[in-house]
Amino acid sequence: MARTASLSGFPEWLPEERLVELHVLDTLRRTFELHGFSSIETRAVETVGQLLRKGEIDKEVYGLSRLQDDDGTPGSDTGKTDPHALALHFDLTVPFARYVVENAGYLAFPFRRYQIQKVWRGERPQEGRAREFTQADIDVVGDGDLPFRYDVEIALVIAEALNALPIPDFLLRINNRKLAEGFYTGIGLTDTAGVLRSIDKLEKIGPAKVAELLRSELGATEDQAQAALKLAGIRTPDTSFVEQVRALGVSNDLLEEGLNELEQVIAAAVQRAPGRVVADLSIARGLDYYTGTVVETILVGHEQLGSICSGGRYDALASKGNRKFPGVGLSIGVTRLVSRILSQNLASASRSVPTAVLVALNSDDSWGAAQDVAAALRSRGISTEVAAKAEKFGKQIKFADRRGIPFVWFTDDDGKHQVKDIRTGEQHDADPADWTPAEEDLRVHVTTN
Amino acid sequence: MARTASLSGFPEWLPEERLVELHVLDTLRRTFELHGFSSIETRAVETVGQLLRKGEIDKEVYGLSRLQDDDGTPGSDTGKTDPHALALHFDLTVPFARYVVENAGYLAFPFRRYQIQKVWRGERPQEGRAREFTQADIDVVGDGDLPFRYDVEIALVIAEALNALPIPDFLLRINNRKLAEGFYTGIGLTDTAGVLRSIDKLEKIGPAKVAELLRSELGATEDQAQAALKLAGIRTPDTSFVEQVRALGVSNDLLEEGLNELEQVIAAAVQRAPGRVVADLSIARGLDYYTGTVVETILVGHEQLGSICSGGRYDALASKGNRKFPGVGLSIGVTRLVSRILSQNLASASRSVPTAVLVALNSDDSWGAAQDVAAALRSRGISTEVAAKAEKFGKQIKFADRRGIPFVWFTDDDGKHQVKDIRTGEQHDADPADWTPAEEDLRVHVTTN
Repeated sequence: MARTASLSGFPEWLPEERLVELHVLDTLRRTFELHGFSSIETRAVETVGQLLRKGEIDKEVYGLSRLQDDDGTPGSDTGKTDPHALALHFDLTVPFARYVVENAGYLAFPFRRYQIQKVWRGERPQEGRAREFTQADIDVVGDGDLPFRYDVEIALVIAEALNALPIPDFLLRINNRKLAEGFYTGIGLTDTAGVLRSIDKLEKIGPAKVAELLRSELGATEDQAQAALKLAGIRTPDTSFVEQVRALGVSNDLLEEGLNELEQVIAAAVQRAPGRVVADLSIARGLDYYTGTVVETILVGHEQLGSICSGGRYDALASKGNRKFPGVGLSIGVTRLVSRILSQNLASASRSVPTAVLVALNSDDSWGAAQDVAAALRSRGISTEVAAKAEKFGKQIKFADRRGIPFVWFTDDDGKHQVKDIRTGEQHDADPADWTPAEEDLRVHVTTN
Repeated sequence: MARTASLSGFPEWLPEERLVELHVLDTLRRTFELHGFSSIETRAVETVGQLLRKGEIDKEVYGLSRLQDDDGTPGSDTGKTDPHALALHFDLTVPFARYVVENAGYLAFPFRRYQIQKVWRGERPQEGRAREFTQADIDVVGDGDLPFRYDVEIALVIAEALNALPIPDFLLRINNRKLAEGFYTGIGLTDTAGVLRSIDKLEKIGPAKVAELLRSELGATEDQAQAALKLAGIRTPDTSFVEQVRALGVSNDLLEEGLNELEQVIAAAVQRAPGRVVADLSIARGLDYYTGTVVETILVGHEQLGSICSGGRYDALASKGNRKFPGVGLSIGVTRLVSRILSQNLASASRSVPTAVLVALNSDDSWGAAQDVAAALRSRGISTEVAAKAEKFGKQIKFADRRGIPFVWFTDDDGKHQVKDIRTGEQHDADPADWTPAEEDLRVHVTTN
């Protein structure tokens, strides 16, 4: 990345950088569709009431108001917020839950969808954290119930999707809220949400300070605090975490259910995505709508970037009267990944433009004939542009070179065609009706460096 | 469309409707890339100062403010607008001009880009007019100058792109501001922008009222008003408009330049996009940054929908000190088109999900084996999902039917594979390593009804 964003937190890419992003987006889409996920988009805008239903994150939300409308400002003088005011969505899960409830009568459940869109958060920008960024989500939502198997499947699909991207090794760190909450209840800590919030700070503030928090804010004894920390310290690449948890000697039904669920996810991943998944009992996830499986993902060697893919099971996010729509999903931070790929030059595009061929102009009158050549090439999927002016051939070749176009096409006054590979200088006769470049030159390719 | 948007002016599609939209977006992208246009995206957010630089449209802009930030509201009590405040872009041309100026050092000119993004306008929603909608733009921008030939090319590329969409006949109505302004000057009307604004109302209020406007607001004589209306009445499918304009007996250099330019566009279109283009001298375009070619596009039989593709030449939108970046571009109203396709059922998807095959479960223990089958099919590009529960086969088939999945795969306890086309009931042996559905079932197709 040669440039910095002209508005902090709102990154924009140059055309050759955008090709890398497009490759990431296309790869995710292809993987998701291969697994039967339907594309949907939700509007960028939700009501403030809808967005803040789950609390916690109101500080990050951008409200909307019509510039010339004196009354419609969401943050009005009274300091109160009108729940009907409009605001930009800060993730894709909350809008998706709203969409499912609104359209339940038109969807076939379990409903599997992917959603790739921009989201906005008014946070202080820093590396890996933008104010406008793209997320790529997959979720499966059931009507009434949703088999646990989808928790396993979602993790496997995401591992396959990430694996297809031009990124370094990644690791899904998976935990289960039932396991954690059952354990805390089993040792006598009843404010399980509070314990989770403290444990969530483990990587930032360390175990000593977390223990202090547990004692001072949640009334935990030293033994309780140490037991909670011991649980959070368990991390295994296989299902051996089950034995390690049992060795802590805590007995609770919810804990057993959580152990069983997490064991299923890890067992399947060991077999189907070896080396990509660990059971990590320190994972808590800040957002309070998760009720079972929770996932964060690190890019190995880029841990300070934060999680590149997060999510989990939410059994109570969406409901319509008594009808519940439990779901499970994961969200890839596309902008975070692409920013890192570009800033560290991890991958790049084989050329900077889609164009494979520039049709040169012999004279200004030959523009029509040149368009005929271009149309013939395009009919076989060859991206082609026609020069706008009949400059000297050297200048037209230089133009192609500057744009990153590999081939220049010449047609002389007698209608004889030749094509030149301007990288090698090689030039030979060619017929617009059948010439095709080599596969690696036909389309732009993105490869890891 | 079975549903109405839950927030007026913010349309959302059901999954099978989204497939139609995706087809439109994919088709446009493919056409643009075949013509060598690079993809870029600009941030959704611009500063108010940047957006309002050209005036006129401030009423339609959505300002942004952080919900918990008391000071940052763009429409503050003073009634004035802070030019550094943030707002959502209302089109893609103004942000593109800003992007070109900021990144001029990194772009190869003439720079050709396509940009497909959402834009927002706080207008009163009505048929064909949403508050959040997708535009698909192509533009070519030069450094210092831009050959007129790009005006011709842009019109041809757009005609090809629209032609590839599942929509009824369309007609590009093309005019040239130089022609109109030169003519007005030639007959002694010096406030040419004012005349254009009046002529722009022709379809809405009719010629008598436009004549009245010209007389009362622009001080035109009856003869001048009638001459301006005569010009606006010229509409030819070929270059014969040149003779008709000349017959009005007005002489002016700018008029000659405009006649020559429009003649070039129409002559090329007659040859390369026959029946798709007319010279229509009533086209004015409201926005004041156009300086030459101007285009609007009607969908034949759906004229009341308004223009589905508009734009033109702008020589002075982007500049950096003395350096000018003239451009020409056209913008397709994707949401307007897709809304119409869906509401009138003009086209539809061959099925409602990407999935071609559901792998049924023989028993709950067979999930792993079913995943192996699915992986084998996916490796050949066949979208496949695995049932989550080993329900009775009838129930699993019903599930596939409800989702719109054409094939169900069965593997018995001996490992024998069969695949059933649930539309015909036909079932036969199949090998996961080489079975492939017919081309029309492999992927979702969108066709006109």
